[in-house]
Amino acid sequence: MSTLVTGIAELVTNDPSHGRGPLGLVADAALVVEDGAVAWSGPRRRAPAADASIDVGGRAVIPGFVDSHTHLVFAGDRAAEFEARMSGAHYDGGGISATVAATRSASDDVLRSRLRDLVAEMRGQGTTTVEVKSGYGLTVEDEARCLRLAAEVTPDTTFLGAHVVPVEYAGRREDYVALVTGPMLESCAPFARWIDVFCEPASAHAFDGEEARAVLEAGLARGLQARVHANQLSAGPGVRLAVELGAASVDHCTHLTDADVDALAGGTTVATLLPGAEFSTRSPYPDARRLLSAGVTVALATDCNPGSSFTSSMPFCIALAVREMGMTPVEALWAATAGGAAALRRPDVGHLGPGGRADLAVLDAPSYRYLAYRPGVPIARALAPEDSGPRTRS
Amino acid sequence: MSTLVTGIAELVTNDPSHGRGPLGLVADAALVVEDGAVAWSGPRRRAPAADASIDVGGRAVIPGFVDSHTHLVFAGDRAAEFEARMSGAHYDGGGISATVAATRSASDDVLRSRLRDLVAEMRGQGTTTVEVKSGYGLTVEDEARCLRLAAEVTPDTTFLGAHVVPVEYAGRREDYVALVTGPMLESCAPFARWIDVFCEPASAHAFDGEEARAVLEAGLARGLQARVHANQLSAGPGVRLAVELGAASVDHCTHLTDADVDALAGGTTVATLLPGAEFSTRSPYPDARRLLSAGVTVALATDCNPGSSFTSSMPFCIALAVREMGMTPVEALWAATAGGAAALRRPDVGHLGPGGRADLAVLDAPSYRYLAYRPGVPIARALAPEDSGPRTRS
Ligand SMILES: [Zn+2]
Ligand SMILES: [Zn+2]
Repeated sequence: MSTLVTGIAELVTNDPSHGRGPLGLVADAALVVEDGAVAWSGPRRRAPAADASIDVGGRAVIPGFVDSHTHLVFAGDRAAEFEARMSGAHYDGGGISATVAATRSASDDVLRSRLRDLVAEMRGQGTTTVEVKSGYGLTVEDEARCLRLAAEVTPDTTFLGAHVVPVEYAGRREDYVALVTGPMLESCAPFARWIDVFCEPASAHAFDGEEARAVLEAGLARGLQARVHANQLSAGPGVRLAVELGAASVDHCTHLTDADVDALAGGTTVATLLPGAEFSTRSPYPDARRLLSAGVTVALATDCNPGSSFTSSMPFCIALAVREMGMTPVEALWAATAGGAAALRRPDVGHLGPGGRADLAVLDAPSYRYLAYRPGVPIARALAPEDSGPRTRS
Repeated sequence: MSTLVTGIAELVTNDPSHGRGPLGLVADAALVVEDGAVAWSGPRRRAPAADASIDVGGRAVIPGFVDSHTHLVFAGDRAAEFEARMSGAHYDGGGISATVAATRSASDDVLRSRLRDLVAEMRGQGTTTVEVKSGYGLTVEDEARCLRLAAEVTPDTTFLGAHVVPVEYAGRREDYVALVTGPMLESCAPFARWIDVFCEPASAHAFDGEEARAVLEAGLARGLQARVHANQLSAGPGVRLAVELGAASVDHCTHLTDADVDALAGGTTVATLLPGAEFSTRSPYPDARRLLSAGVTVALATDCNPGSSFTSSMPFCIALAVREMGMTPVEALWAATAGGAAALRRPDVGHLGPGGRADLAVLDAPSYRYLAYRPGVPIARALAPEDSGPRTRS
């Protein structure tokens, strides 16, 4: 069955050959969805016939957001830690252990229910693709369990056993790295597409360049693809390591040297910026303008997690990117959709040209500009056009 | 009919005699609503009987937000101006003339429909009291028309004929001040509770200290109460003038001298901070900590308007106040509820102790802390308990 979507005041295709500017904008547009994919998109007056139709009432339609960096499998509550930090305490990642303890003792049902609630909350804000990391289990069994649950909601599951060195390995980090690269990787790989590591030599909880290399190389050897947490708290070797190993994305990129920017500009690794983390830890923001000027591909994601960034809102990240990181509204929307798709190596999402997945988000507004123009206002939601038409299938 | 509200994981009463801390917190609470007012609130185990009951499912309940500063009567679209500004243009208020032209040529129905949509959008985000200013008509007829429409949705209507000097009065500002303080005030006063002026000597569009005094004194003489836009773009005489004239609130307070802070500390005027405006104009934020340390009463509001701050989200303003202005989560929530009530001289709203209006907001979260902990996520909504119970009335 095909469904014609009309009443689109402005369509963002992210296909410059398909419309105006880098967002491939089409005014007064229509779109045909068939078998979950975009069969046609363009000006309404040229729209082909379809089996059913829905009218979005003069709203803007954009590709659903691609949130390429989240930590959604967890239990526990760190609202009190957040409040304490906002009254002056310093954040260095140590609070993760509270979430680890709560996650280990939570049942599958509790973890699954939280995870599904957060994914639904994201859809309600326009996100249609989400990556989900492990990293709050930190035992062979709990990491595998978290990834098994994550795989129920997304193909983009990421093994992050190397999130922090758990407290029970204090003083014997090398044993933990051996566990992560050995038995834990073996148990987790069947549920994971990606391998990740928190490379941050400045933090006693995280991993230095050599440890990060060992983790990533083990994952790559096991058939996973690489993505990296790097340069969040200080400049370090993580960004260059990510580029060297051909990681799809290196995430945070808050503190970069010229050599880091040069490496990114010369490689294929996307720089994924996570302004929600800087917002909620009162840290300086990454300089998106510097990366864009150097020709680096930039993505935006929420980093949704209970410690350093508990936002699930991609529009909020877009507003921050425009306010704080030197991005234009066009660049920020592209980064939150097509950029995220590049960071996940997902050519099927992040655009609405023919052949893309019919992952639509509709805005209670006539233009994409309102995402940054109306900060904090929940104007975006995912739209499932095939659920809205009549159920007759020919 | 009385309705018992149960399942309240945490109740914010804003009554320190009624619960813990400045927010008057009660854990595992209940609340009885009768005739639109709070008849009882406290620990659930002591709750009296009622005619009906509703269960909010383990969520936090807070007083609905009091948004004491908005400009909701307007037509037109300034998203393109916003995008241009975010690409580098400077904001000095001149863009208001575009909204004035669109508002003058819009029908009552168009203005009313926009206004009601925005008020509904606010309720959907937890706001239950809203002040609404005129200021985009700037003729006798259009200012009165905008206030008549505003009075359909709130008792807190504010005559802001002295928003900017309209372009047709360029070179003869004194004639415009005479119009505002004469025939325009006469036509508008029947629809207005408040008189306001944009006092900003640094802007050619706004009013200096003497002009502002003339406007405010005329309004006071006509029986209106005073509130003032001041010290947004630079330090000026506005804050001290507001205190001297006993204004209920002086709003923006972005640039303050020590004399301004001293005046506020020695007076009864609330300092209303509008971080949405600083967010959307990339301006430095006001220093709430400095005001709180001096003992000044601080309120938070959205300044919702199509030019400098098109957010309608009080939770977003709370998150900014915590991130950027040195407020704790407790202080920010108080400022967005009880602070707004003080700024509007409304003892009936902003708290949920007995006798207050039953203006409740419910959070999709167990604690008020989540408002700042989950920035950008739409977790708050207004709750109308008497609409939810059975319709039997004894
Ligand atoms: Zn992360
Ligand atoms: Zn204002």
